[in-house]
Amino acid sequence: MRAITIHEPGGPEVLTWAEVPDPTAGPGEVLVEVVASAVNRADLLQRQGHYNPPPGSSPYPGLECAGLLDGEPVCALLSGGGYAQRVAVPADHLLPVPAGVALDEAAGLPEVACTVWSNVVRGARLAEGETLLVHGGSSGIGTFAIQLGKALGARVITTARKVKHEALLALGADHVIDYSTEDFVEVTQGLGGADVILDIIAASYLDRNIAALASNGRIATIGTQGGRRAELDFRKLMAKRGSISATTLRARPAAEKTAIIAGVRETVWPLIEAGRIRPVIDRRLPMARAADAHRVVEENEHIGKVLLVNPS
Amino acid sequence: MRAITIHEPGGPEVLTWAEVPDPTAGPGEVLVEVVASAVNRADLLQRQGHYNPPPGSSPYPGLECAGLLDGEPVCALLSGGGYAQRVAVPADHLLPVPAGVALDEAAGLPEVACTVWSNVVRGARLAEGETLLVHGGSSGIGTFAIQLGKALGARVITTARKVKHEALLALGADHVIDYSTEDFVEVTQGLGGADVILDIIAASYLDRNIAALASNGRIATIGTQGGRRAELDFRKLMAKRGSISATTLRARPAAEKTAIIAGVRETVWPLIEAGRIRPVIDRRLPMARAADAHRVVEENEHIGKVLLVNPS
Repeated sequence: MRAITIHEPGGPEVLTWAEVPDPTAGPGEVLVEVVASAVNRADLLQRQGHYNPPPGSSPYPGLECAGLLDGEPVCALLSGGGYAQRVAVPADHLLPVPAGVALDEAAGLPEVACTVWSNVVRGARLAEGETLLVHGGSSGIGTFAIQLGKALGARVITTARKVKHEALLALGADHVIDYSTEDFVEVTQGLGGADVILDIIAASYLDRNIAALASNGRIATIGTQGGRRAELDFRKLMAKRGSISATTLRARPAAEKTAIIAGVRETVWPLIEAGRIRPVIDRRLPMARAADAHRVVEENEHIGKVLLVNPS
Repeated sequence: MRAITIHEPGGPEVLTWAEVPDPTAGPGEVLVEVVASAVNRADLLQRQGHYNPPPGSSPYPGLECAGLLDGEPVCALLSGGGYAQRVAVPADHLLPVPAGVALDEAAGLPEVACTVWSNVVRGARLAEGETLLVHGGSSGIGTFAIQLGKALGARVITTARKVKHEALLALGADHVIDYSTEDFVEVTQGLGGADVILDIIAASYLDRNIAALASNGRIATIGTQGGRRAELDFRKLMAKRGSISATTLRARPAAEKTAIIAGVRETVWPLIEAGRIRPVIDRRLPMARAADAHRVVEENEHIGKVLLVNPS
């Protein structure tokens, strides 16, 4: 088969559509014929050599896919290998393609649905009537989190560049903050503070995220785009009775992923099938043009997911 | 009536048993005749001028008491004023004196029970079979947390000076670490890591607490004895999929305290009445000798609670 390989760490140009050995299904695994995969920021880090696949995972990038299993449409959460024509996946990491969603669009759902649900619902327990602040609302994660927050009855505040505001308001965001001209702490506190913050920035936002919290607020950090180390002021966190969690999805053991996928299927999939959450697709590119797809995401010009589609 | 007043911030000698106006019960409040109060570390901070009472609270120290309400024995969580002959308390911050517990002993239960339960059970959701690490196991908080952890079916590791180990093992602790000669990270990781850490140290332990966590572990910080500011490494926290919360009990709004007291009454009081958790009383001193009681706690020579008892 062919897959996108990373022949050495570097820029998008190191991604090569190359002939590689077919994957083999291990115990409990099945082989999926990949119709489409989708780009995640973790793929960019992997390409740069900063996020190596966990032991036993495919060396190729791609944390989610949609495709065919014995001719039936499925999508799947992967620990790698989605940028390929075939991928081996634990059978219990499969999800059905939600009714009303095109097969290739479903490629962009598993990673964001599992990441957002495990952090915002299972971890931070966002409740109806609470306020969710989503940093980077235009990303795949962001566009999904906005919709999930609204579907759960929360008020949603998000940050994005001005050019993306209209699209995020159309997705249901109650307030969009232009982080280049506005102070998100001031705006969020003016709205009563955030009960939950879904954070991709980490270090450079730590102090401001605490300041933006309402009492009993929870910060769920899932990325470190603003650096890994920052000074934590415990008294400020205490004054909010706040909490900070930090997780990645990929490193979770298979059993934890299975539990998350089961939760997503039970609570998120019905919201998609009811049309209350829709996949937000920025564009589709042929799998062989993964380098271009990475450039789009790196330059942050997209809204939603960038799909990589195999030739049919 | 008489109460312990703080005529200026300072050492134990500033505590004065003085004639003061009687408290008056506001809306929803009742007046309790105080039989005993108990020393909390927060009282020492208040005495030093570092922890002022929240608005509307009594200016006198004392965050818990036991006494008589219309002749009936009760105990209560207070936002202040326990070091006195009478105190006004919201009626729904009262708790019954658990069967089998002496009235004055009950004075040492509300603050520790509410603090430990709200952090370890409600916040960190300690589950049966998990491992709880309690820093400072010989304190009032510590002796209670050890017993609650065991009653919930957790394994309990705690830290204390060697001289206190025997007493903490007798309370049920599975492992006691002498923090002056042993590395708590090494010992805890040798036992599989901590699922929950009840932490009173904060800054100076932040990095080591994260290192001592098991995967999906939760740090619940309730004190800042080791300083308020420290560098947080998000990647280290992510590698554990860990979380850090920071709370104080006193600053919670009355409604939150009411909910915590209801939870404690429902889940902790039966464990006390069944003899699975007992009050650990280090000593009793007359209320007028509050200064000596503070010296005992400041020098960390006690195990459990130091009670302050009114003349009968």
